[in-house]
Amino acid sequence: MFVARNFLGLAGGVALCLATLFGFAPAQAQTDPLPSWNDTAPKAAIVAFVEKVTTENSPDFVPKPERIAVFDNDGTLWVEHPMYTQLAFALDRVKAEAAAHPEWKDTQPFKAVLEGDMKALAAAGEKGLMQLMMETHADMTNDEFQKVVSDWFASARDPRFQRPYTQLVYQPMLELLDYLRANGFKTFIVSGGGIEFMRPWTEQVYGVPPEQVVGSSIKTQFVMRDGRPTLFRLPQVNFIDDKGGKPVGINQHIGRRPIAAFGNSDGDLEMLQWTTMTGGSVRFGMLIHHTDAEREYAYDRNTDFGRLDMALDAAVINEWTVVNMKADWKEIFPRK
Amino acid sequence: MFVARNFLGLAGGVALCLATLFGFAPAQAQTDPLPSWNDTAPKAAIVAFVEKVTTENSPDFVPKPERIAVFDNDGTLWVEHPMYTQLAFALDRVKAEAAAHPEWKDTQPFKAVLEGDMKALAAAGEKGLMQLMMETHADMTNDEFQKVVSDWFASARDPRFQRPYTQLVYQPMLELLDYLRANGFKTFIVSGGGIEFMRPWTEQVYGVPPEQVVGSSIKTQFVMRDGRPTLFRLPQVNFIDDKGGKPVGINQHIGRRPIAAFGNSDGDLEMLQWTTMTGGSVRFGMLIHHTDAEREYAYDRNTDFGRLDMALDAAVINEWTVVNMKADWKEIFPRK
Repeated sequence: MFVARNFLGLAGGVALCLATLFGFAPAQAQTDPLPSWNDTAPKAAIVAFVEKVTTENSPDFVPKPERIAVFDNDGTLWVEHPMYTQLAFALDRVKAEAAAHPEWKDTQPFKAVLEGDMKALAAAGEKGLMQLMMETHADMTNDEFQKVVSDWFASARDPRFQRPYTQLVYQPMLELLDYLRANGFKTFIVSGGGIEFMRPWTEQVYGVPPEQVVGSSIKTQFVMRDGRPTLFRLPQVNFIDDKGGKPVGINQHIGRRPIAAFGNSDGDLEMLQWTTMTGGSVRFGMLIHHTDAEREYAYDRNTDFGRLDMALDAAVINEWTVVNMKADWKEIFPRK
Repeated sequence: MFVARNFLGLAGGVALCLATLFGFAPAQAQTDPLPSWNDTAPKAAIVAFVEKVTTENSPDFVPKPERIAVFDNDGTLWVEHPMYTQLAFALDRVKAEAAAHPEWKDTQPFKAVLEGDMKALAAAGEKGLMQLMMETHADMTNDEFQKVVSDWFASARDPRFQRPYTQLVYQPMLELLDYLRANGFKTFIVSGGGIEFMRPWTEQVYGVPPEQVVGSSIKTQFVMRDGRPTLFRLPQVNFIDDKGGKPVGINQHIGRRPIAAFGNSDGDLEMLQWTTMTGGSVRFGMLIHHTDAEREYAYDRNTDFGRLDMALDAAVINEWTVVNMKADWKEIFPRK
């Protein structure tokens, strides 16, 4: 086994060396890195941008450490309709915990959740939503929360597509993440979603490690519990990584200005402004426009959340690339 | 020129390929990676730890992505006496801005700073200190602040050593950072100091890029100014990355538990606990004990800041390695 592995390693090494010495390009350089993108304007714009910033001695060349690309998550990398996945998680958690909380049967917004009364839930407003989030996301250690999240993802299914939520990611965006990384980019998620709700699976699903995930968070506290150090999750908001919070979160975590930003809603407006409005240097901004009711969903100015309105207007002024999902994407989801 | 560079690239490629194919170790693997460390127990402990976690098929092997090492800055990577460098910066900024603030001549703590009255400054306490920090660190954009910081570092000199502060870093620790990175570790700074006070120079001095710097911060706000997006620094504390805040900051930024932590004071106690008290797996904790009044400073339980007291006791219980600066370090600072 050891010998066999070394032999294969050696053979691989020889091939790579020959390719390097004699200038052979590796096979995949010849194949299309973005096969799920139609040959329309957005694909051409992506490739043109990447070639510009990676061509040495070009005036637009950007050194590798500065090749930072930031991606919104909900609606940009995965499905956000008919409700944010994290809300689906919170509702399921309320149901799972209901037996331990008999008082919820008569208390809003929990009553609404248990009765499946979405109208009453909506009426509870932002305050009710925050109550739900705190009740289901706090008062446990960080390790415990990550286990709850992982367990939920293992069994939960999207009601329309009947697939695990982590499979309802956009195949063209997975290819884009890979393509950027293959060109020396460091890819970050910058999401309004909870940072600890994403970290258990972003590495496996998107190839984005935990230290490259930026998100909203609640406060945590260091406590020794049974002689072991733990981080305990408190029911208090720490940071909301949305709208003007996104550039703040980017600066706090990354400390560099990205050169490319990908979003799909008004919540991403400031992130795209921060990334692209630098006065001169080459930058890339992209909005995913959900136009495909048949294969996914169609919404923009007409939705309560994930609304794409001001950012769609700003895209024209700032020359951001707008993806028309229906026309520009050959595939939506990874094949099963 | 183009031909010459390609030729050199090719020659380098050949050498590398030959080394790979025939198993030659590169030359530096034979030389001591930690030449400024004496051959005493701490050096042996570091090398033994690194060998354990990097030896494949060993029970203690740690895959590269999990090889996270965290370093305190003040007193661990550079000098913190007779005052934190960031305080020296704040005092200089008060002096530089005094002409625009005639009222400071009669207002504490500014009066104390302008008169060089360190006793009165100390009497102003934590509240006075916070006033100084907010006055000198806020009410400007992040870009403006980074320029102020960079300009200050270019001209400021430590009064005792008469060297730029960025040269008063510990040569043995620079070697340690390099050694860990050469062994697949990702090195992070986790400091009580201001995150934006460090980022302008950590990459050049320590090889630690901005996205791997964790520190204290004030709140920032996204604002459009003259049609350009900016981050404006507000005079409000956002996060204090000290004591129990260090594990919180580590989790927020990195989202993985480090396997090695390096500190020098009680402010690092919780970070070392969080890193090492995991119940079984191999971890490494190290404290720098300042014992060398002649070449640097000598202090531990007897100082007002950078105090090493509880952590020194905890080091015995948790088997953390304690560096005796005088005995264990051959050199303190990089040669001029």
